[in-house]
Amino acid sequence: MFITFEGIEGSGKTTQIQSAAAYLSGRNLPVVVTREPGGTAIGLKIRALLLDPEHHDLDPRAELLLYMADRAHHLSTVVRPAVADRKIVLCDRYFDATLAYQGYARGLDIDFLKTLHSLVLDDFTPDLTLLLDLPPQIGLRRAWRQISAGEREAAETRFEKELVPFHERVRAGYLDMALQSPKRFRIVNAEQDPDIVGRDIRGILSHFFDTRYPPD
Amino acid sequence: MFITFEGIEGSGKTTQIQSAAAYLSGRNLPVVVTREPGGTAIGLKIRALLLDPEHHDLDPRAELLLYMADRAHHLSTVVRPAVADRKIVLCDRYFDATLAYQGYARGLDIDFLKTLHSLVLDDFTPDLTLLLDLPPQIGLRRAWRQISAGEREAAETRFEKELVPFHERVRAGYLDMALQSPKRFRIVNAEQDPDIVGRDIRGILSHFFDTRYPPD
Repeated sequence: MFITFEGIEGSGKTTQIQSAAAYLSGRNLPVVVTREPGGTAIGLKIRALLLDPEHHDLDPRAELLLYMADRAHHLSTVVRPAVADRKIVLCDRYFDATLAYQGYARGLDIDFLKTLHSLVLDDFTPDLTLLLDLPPQIGLRRAWRQISAGEREAAETRFEKELVPFHERVRAGYLDMALQSPKRFRIVNAEQDPDIVGRDIRGILSHFFDTRYPPD
Repeated sequence: MFITFEGIEGSGKTTQIQSAAAYLSGRNLPVVVTREPGGTAIGLKIRALLLDPEHHDLDPRAELLLYMADRAHHLSTVVRPAVADRKIVLCDRYFDATLAYQGYARGLDIDFLKTLHSLVLDDFTPDLTLLLDLPPQIGLRRAWRQISAGEREAAETRFEKELVPFHERVRAGYLDMALQSPKRFRIVNAEQDPDIVGRDIRGILSHFFDTRYPPD
């Protein structure tokens, strides 16, 4: 069973994935928590390359291929073996993130991305995707709590002019995909208090697993 | 003008590419020398990942995608701008190396590799490819001169059982491609003395450029 968590920065994926893992473990289900990029040793190095501001001029297709390299290795060494071992894999981001960020938001062709996914990753698709949805204005401010007031002021213009519009496109992309694949996607209102979001997610997981593994 | 140098380990590409650059510069032609992987700042980091023995378990498709990421960035930031600027780009390895190593030698599907090249790199193809051809037994021994006698002895079995057969497949792949694209490929006998190899390459380049840029 392969379950992915998607959403923009500040949507609370990291917190919610841990809470979901604790809930499933409590039901005696075998859980593996992992992430993209960076779910493997080489993935951590690829992630460092991708996040290094020194590489701000990285060609968009090269960026995409680095994400795909991380994914190919992660899939074959972590996700597929765990799924084959009948574990429940909870993964922070997967191919939908590529479609939302590189496709919808940065403008790489969606069909090109899907063809690449099909070609390189055999269209390996999650059984369930939880989309933690909230307005970028709120998510990005949450993610920004770590930043000092001085830095925040300096970056305020960029925030309003670049970051928010960019994440509006990411969000719209995610929602569009969720509408196109309603069987796989569940949209969670991540603007709520984290405890309420966690309760909503447990409800979704409970229903999902009850129909597959009915309690005795 | 985009000219690539291909060949197995120990075929003398590094020496010969420098010598060819000196020759073309002497003819007042503007030359750029570069390499794959590692022709850019991020490329050097990708190259380090690829060569790190810690990652010996790297998934073959992930390895391929890392080479492709390096190539996409190198192409868009180094090769294409230089070619657009009417420079002659001499490049140590390119897509033929992917076909020879990942395809012919490691067994990834050749059509899959070609589709990926076409999809991600718009089939960008060299104007001329110099294949420095020699038997792996000779090339690998040359490349091994740096290795101490102790290490060599320990690795001798692996050499005979793995490295030589692997590079036999790489060589056969290169020769097969050269036969399929005789207009683009020139096969150089790299078993000869390096000075003679250099003379052969100058002859090929001289003929190639005389027909395109006739001397006054």
